[in-house]
Amino acid sequence: MHKTGLDYFFYPKTAAVIGASGERGSIGYTTFENFLHSRFKRQAFAVNPKHKTVQGKKSYASVKDIPQDIDLAVIAVPAKVVPAVFKDCIEKRVKAAIIISAGFAEIGEKKLTAQLQGLIDSSRAAKRVTRVIGPNCIGVLVPENGLDTTFFEEKRMRRPKRGGISFISQSGALGALILDWAAMEEIGIGKFVSYGNAMDVDEADLLEYLGKDPRTKVITAYLEGAKEGRKFFECARRISPCKPIIVLKGGITEEAHKATTSHTGSLAGSAQVYGAVFRQSGIVQARDLNELFAFAKLFENEPLPHGKNVQIITNGGGFGIITADAVVQSSLKLAKMSAAGRNRIKKKVPKTVVVGNPIDLTGDADSGRYVLALESALADRNVDSVIVIMLFNTPTLELGVVKELGRIRKKAKKPIAVLSLGSEFTSTMLSAIEKQGLTTFNYPTTAARALAALSGYAEFSRTGKCTEIP
Amino acid sequence: MHKTGLDYFFYPKTAAVIGASGERGSIGYTTFENFLHSRFKRQAFAVNPKHKTVQGKKSYASVKDIPQDIDLAVIAVPAKVVPAVFKDCIEKRVKAAIIISAGFAEIGEKKLTAQLQGLIDSSRAAKRVTRVIGPNCIGVLVPENGLDTTFFEEKRMRRPKRGGISFISQSGALGALILDWAAMEEIGIGKFVSYGNAMDVDEADLLEYLGKDPRTKVITAYLEGAKEGRKFFECARRISPCKPIIVLKGGITEEAHKATTSHTGSLAGSAQVYGAVFRQSGIVQARDLNELFAFAKLFENEPLPHGKNVQIITNGGGFGIITADAVVQSSLKLAKMSAAGRNRIKKKVPKTVVVGNPIDLTGDADSGRYVLALESALADRNVDSVIVIMLFNTPTLELGVVKELGRIRKKAKKPIAVLSLGSEFTSTMLSAIEKQGLTTFNYPTTAARALAALSGYAEFSRTGKCTEIP
Repeated sequence: MHKTGLDYFFYPKTAAVIGASGERGSIGYTTFENFLHSRFKRQAFAVNPKHKTVQGKKSYASVKDIPQDIDLAVIAVPAKVVPAVFKDCIEKRVKAAIIISAGFAEIGEKKLTAQLQGLIDSSRAAKRVTRVIGPNCIGVLVPENGLDTTFFEEKRMRRPKRGGISFISQSGALGALILDWAAMEEIGIGKFVSYGNAMDVDEADLLEYLGKDPRTKVITAYLEGAKEGRKFFECARRISPCKPIIVLKGGITEEAHKATTSHTGSLAGSAQVYGAVFRQSGIVQARDLNELFAFAKLFENEPLPHGKNVQIITNGGGFGIITADAVVQSSLKLAKMSAAGRNRIKKKVPKTVVVGNPIDLTGDADSGRYVLALESALADRNVDSVIVIMLFNTPTLELGVVKELGRIRKKAKKPIAVLSLGSEFTSTMLSAIEKQGLTTFNYPTTAARALAALSGYAEFSRTGKCTEIP
Repeated sequence: MHKTGLDYFFYPKTAAVIGASGERGSIGYTTFENFLHSRFKRQAFAVNPKHKTVQGKKSYASVKDIPQDIDLAVIAVPAKVVPAVFKDCIEKRVKAAIIISAGFAEIGEKKLTAQLQGLIDSSRAAKRVTRVIGPNCIGVLVPENGLDTTFFEEKRMRRPKRGGISFISQSGALGALILDWAAMEEIGIGKFVSYGNAMDVDEADLLEYLGKDPRTKVITAYLEGAKEGRKFFECARRISPCKPIIVLKGGITEEAHKATTSHTGSLAGSAQVYGAVFRQSGIVQARDLNELFAFAKLFENEPLPHGKNVQIITNGGGFGIITADAVVQSSLKLAKMSAAGRNRIKKKVPKTVVVGNPIDLTGDADSGRYVLALESALADRNVDSVIVIMLFNTPTLELGVVKELGRIRKKAKKPIAVLSLGSEFTSTMLSAIEKQGLTTFNYPTTAARALAALSGYAEFSRTGKCTEIP
């Protein structure tokens, strides 16, 4: 792989943990331990002048003493020491540095901030560039190769599996929480970056990088402000036609925004203004944490719809109706299937089945009835996407339906969302359905809003052209 | 207990299952089996003319042959047989009948429907009243005494524990699904009723009954239409000041409503019209399934707030900010704590703690810092309710905080909502917090909307007077 500046943050050959520690529970301990437990163990070096060895490995007094080139330095030392150790990194020509340490602009510490900024700027000017993520962050997690600078205990923060959704977060705590939750929800992550104060690498740089990253299919982000708003939105507008960008913006109301201004020099504006700017840039806006990844999963798995007409298929009348409400309230439309399509279904089902929208297959529906309805809907020119509701409380819906769904998903050119709610039995079924490559939801409003987001993005990408990505 | 007409549905001394069966998997099998596995086993009788015994118990040819008075008959026979067996019930002077059987108005079966209605009407006129729930329903579930006519297998539909939230559902399938999910979420249920076609007992009758039921603290309902809209809303208006009624209305958009008209003679109107009628009647409106019980839990556990000012306390800045957004967007206000209250906190915490709204206790917050902030906020005259965000990924938040929360909850006179998200470790903590009597949420928007619903209801109950309940 040809390495650009930011590649070293995600695919280093060698790494140094500056502030590596033998004291269990400390950040320097967990960070170094993560390296030792990964495929990087032979290429990871401890830097700590106070000790000769750390966790059984030789400890160097300075990064400059390491007898190899260093691609990535992870800095976890007290803030006041950061400028000095970072200066060593520049002199060592370290390619990338993640500064975990807090205690800079976010607490109003101007002197140290200026000192660090001076070093970053002069390193650039001198072309001895050490790119920087942070300070005040938890760094990166790359499930693909096990690179992990997030310093939380495994017990309190599980690590997600690999996948096509990348996630950047201004807030480290929110990032950690979302990773933990993504692991439980079995959501696959491409690259995670917590970038904190963004003194060098900012959200626009990361967007640019992930836009070109072949392993990232969907970009998600939690932002409070952007360091440079115009740069960010211009970048988003170029990348959006190629790859969806889903953003949860913290401080979208003016009242909440005031609470953020203490720690970011961020964009001002009302929720309405943001909505407009996001739309123009093709950014898909999530309103809450659950939407961020619910949207991302659907975007990763499903093709883009050609319009807003949604067909609902259900085995429970009530669940079908509240889903119809959610569809209508999410700016989508209830599809009107062609007479031919409806008749195709009617011919083969009992008279109790209502072939409207929703199609109510009724409580005794089996796999065959679902296949008939779903294939007919997908083949219908008046249908752009389908929501399939499956209530597994009824005894007639057999496990065989899972494979049928997988088979249909593979050949279908329209998006399908699967919707169900229940306890363990239902969860097991939904998990099996996800393994077949489909996206499942628990609540009608989430499914409908995710489909509406996908339709909105489809509309945007029909107007814009992807010229960015090879 | 003095028994009114409807009491026999929930507290029968004797019960007959008409259509009791020995054939595993059939409705008549599961229903009778449920009785045999409950405290009703000695007072439950099988009625089935085709067999001498059913599941080891004597089977009677008719309910009239049972040598005891019967309080409750559960009817699970083919629709065409229903009028005849129901006639037997009237002649036997059975107090209450739940007709599980489907195949009446909901499939356009006019003749059988008229026949059954005729019997119901003449039983009333003759004062030999057998009250009826159904047909086309799954009946009742009373966790308090184990009465259970819902015929789903335990494996596919778990039963919830007892509690103060009662739930009535027009749709049987939706009712089953919500019970299953409530069981997993450890939500306690008072009485559950699926009332189907409401040929006799309707939603207004059930509202009236649950309004007076001392074991029901919060009434929740899934409705598509009301049989008699005016009666329902008048009833709701009388009960609301005494006890909250939370409704999820299916078919709230005109488009989805059209899909419901096939099986109910229901209220027409747009989402806006419903919103207005609900507000006038004091009904709290849920927009989706997750809101129905999220609201109910908060209503059951928490006192009513005196106003809309919410103080947020957090150990994660980003999570605090998106919660502030959610608060503002849910028609609540960010509280402005008094200078005295803020100073009380500031004196005792590190300078990194931001005492605004949110109060950001930062990532190294411990139990003591939470107690200080929460007690100060609750004592502050400018604060009406508090959202406490606890991110358990950080190592410093000890388990001791759970008991402290319980202690504060017991004496506090203002509502508290606890908010967190994560995998197993966080779930365990939230479950422990719920056991202390608090209400927890995973997403900012849900917590904020639940608090907004509670504030709206508090406002309504300040204007209305409870004159209904002794």
